[in-house]
Amino acid sequence: MKIYYAMSISGQQNPESDKINTTLIEYLKKFGEVLTEHFSNPDIKGKGETELSNKAIHDRDLNWLLSADVIIAEVSNASLGVGYEIGRAVEHNKKILCLRKTSDRRLSAMISGCDKLTLKEYYTLDDAKNTINEFLK
Amino acid sequence: MKIYYAMSISGQQNPESDKINTTLIEYLKKFGEVLTEHFSNPDIKGKGETELSNKAIHDRDLNWLLSADVIIAEVSNASLGVGYEIGRAVEHNKKILCLRKTSDRRLSAMISGCDKLTLKEYYTLDDAKNTINEFLK
Repeated sequence: MKIYYAMSISGQQNPESDKINTTLIEYLKKFGEVLTEHFSNPDIKGKGETELSNKAIHDRDLNWLLSADVIIAEVSNASLGVGYEIGRAVEHNKKILCLRKTSDRRLSAMISGCDKLTLKEYYTLDDAKNTINEFLK
Repeated sequence: MKIYYAMSISGQQNPESDKINTTLIEYLKKFGEVLTEHFSNPDIKGKGETELSNKAIHDRDLNWLLSADVIIAEVSNASLGVGYEIGRAVEHNKKILCLRKTSDRRLSAMISGCDKLTLKEYYTLDDAKNTINEFLK
């Protein structure tokens, strides 16, 4: 199974984001190939992959997105990139799971109101893992 | 001309966002109908339109997006909704202008590296208006 894990890189971060992303990517590797595994590399946070042009990053990631069997998107943080990836994946009828840490902040209605994806909140990382189990089984 | 103005509602805001959005929406009305004019209403910032379900908001906004002749997206703030709208609009071959206030923060490569949209930075609102003039003429 090819898995595209989408997460905020240049957008918002919260203090837990690093732990969440590394834990979930590691967990997803039990189920298949995580195409975007390197997204959780701390070197690219906030600045991206400086050795590649923006177009090269975009085109590579889009190819991965379109080749993936499933998209797991961490949507706890505001992010143009994650939103863009979800929008394009919806148009390609991809199977999409959006995971969001429970929060008082409002989630965009473009995500919470989209009936072409599955949105699940989690409180602990174990909750998120259980949701992944259910979704991918 | 039908114009979809996309902006962060539930995502990041910066101190200038209100002025930017109200000024640009008002300016765009010179060129046609701004379908999303009410987005700049301060009552919905951070909490959305509480009288509508998320699905009703999503479906209405998506219909507007797909019926628009042009998308003007303000991408200075991280936003899942704006990213999602751009992603879906790209798939429908819409004419898209992304406007971004000059900043040291990195913009997602999914926006800066996408060759199916026009991205322009602005420093003053007059710069942004001039860019709109060029783009819509």
